[in-house]
Amino acid sequence: MRIRVVGVGMGPQHVTPEAADALRSCDYVIAADKGSSDELLSLRRAIADEYGASLVAVPDPPRDRADPDDYPGAVRDWHEARVAAYETVLRERGGTAAFLVWGDPSLYDSTIRIVSELAERLSFEWDVLPGISAPQLLAARHRIVLHGVGQPVHVTTARRLRDDIAAGQTNLVVMLSRSLDLTGLEDWSIWSGANLGTSSEELVSGRVGDVLDSLECARARARESAGWVMDVHLLRAPS
Amino acid sequence: MRIRVVGVGMGPQHVTPEAADALRSCDYVIAADKGSSDELLSLRRAIADEYGASLVAVPDPPRDRADPDDYPGAVRDWHEARVAAYETVLRERGGTAAFLVWGDPSLYDSTIRIVSELAERLSFEWDVLPGISAPQLLAARHRIVLHGVGQPVHVTTARRLRDDIAAGQTNLVVMLSRSLDLTGLEDWSIWSGANLGTSSEELVSGRVGDVLDSLECARARARESAGWVMDVHLLRAPS
Repeated sequence: MRIRVVGVGMGPQHVTPEAADALRSCDYVIAADKGSSDELLSLRRAIADEYGASLVAVPDPPRDRADPDDYPGAVRDWHEARVAAYETVLRERGGTAAFLVWGDPSLYDSTIRIVSELAERLSFEWDVLPGISAPQLLAARHRIVLHGVGQPVHVTTARRLRDDIAAGQTNLVVMLSRSLDLTGLEDWSIWSGANLGTSSEELVSGRVGDVLDSLECARARARESAGWVMDVHLLRAPS
Repeated sequence: MRIRVVGVGMGPQHVTPEAADALRSCDYVIAADKGSSDELLSLRRAIADEYGASLVAVPDPPRDRADPDDYPGAVRDWHEARVAAYETVLRERGGTAAFLVWGDPSLYDSTIRIVSELAERLSFEWDVLPGISAPQLLAARHRIVLHGVGQPVHVTTARRLRDDIAAGQTNLVVMLSRSLDLTGLEDWSIWSGANLGTSSEELVSGRVGDVLDSLECARARARESAGWVMDVHLLRAPS
């Protein structure tokens, strides 16, 4: 048995030659079926088809969002349930399987953790191939660099944004946002993207105080068009 | 005239379908010729050849490293000289040109700033296509995620590392390192890569105090094999 964790970027246009070779080497491709986002699943299917691998959609276990204060606990339980679901599929099918990861496996994605636990239970070789991530496509669309010359960029989650700003961060990529509280940041600059790389992509940029309505509309349009919305932002303090 | 800023990732194995299309649309490809790194230039040449574009190597102006305290000033002067060099080439040749960027244009790369200044002087349309970046390939090679669950990752430079750690950062990607002072970080974990994606790639990981010699040897081997060395690291405080 062999597993390949394949970052496919933000769509078929980002599947690298080495990712394509990896997919061709696989008997099948495993993709989480998150129910709500048919477009993402069908994009995964299109990618698997293009490289001659069959797609096995594994229903994603429901994630407990009840207790916002126990985020790590909720992620842990969800993670356990996913590991068990994938283990079942791998035991049944064997062979060489790919896990398709939207974006890049190294940022806010559970696949590497899942596969590394599966490797302990099932014993197989595995490797990881990088893919274009959402912050990179955000930067490309806005034609910006993610940081000032020689300066850092702090990649964080919407949940942590306030704490990280309070700790002095002035240039942040914000991921995993369901909603973004921008109160008090009116003079900051924002570069924002929703559903990047898909047909429902929306871009907004400007002074936060000037684009609050645009941000909300863009998010609503993306959700209406796709049935789901995933966004990413760069936030920078005034200089 | 049209310019396309094309991230080619860490080698030909990372040229995405959209980057390949962009290269095919170009009359020629502009690459900085940094003199010392023949392998990188020949890899750029191979990429241009593969997609039917001729390569125009523009000698990179020397960068003044004399005054380590005036880093922004040195970068600014160097940047000005590069803009002037590219302007000359573009005025002579016109047409559609691509700038090949090793890795991704959004991280510690001057191309976007250069092209945006050129656009003011020469007036052309331009776009940016993302590429696989060094931190992503580092993470893939070590099969790790760049952050703890729901935690941030601070992307910074070797020059700023000490300040950022002093300010409380405990999980950092360190880029642009010529040499890395790890004194006092013996109990931290490091995941390191030199010349990632090339034939002289070197990987080291472990507790900093245990791998200091390995890090130095890997860097020396990479430099000996390639004639140059570029490395990237993930540093994480003990939990």
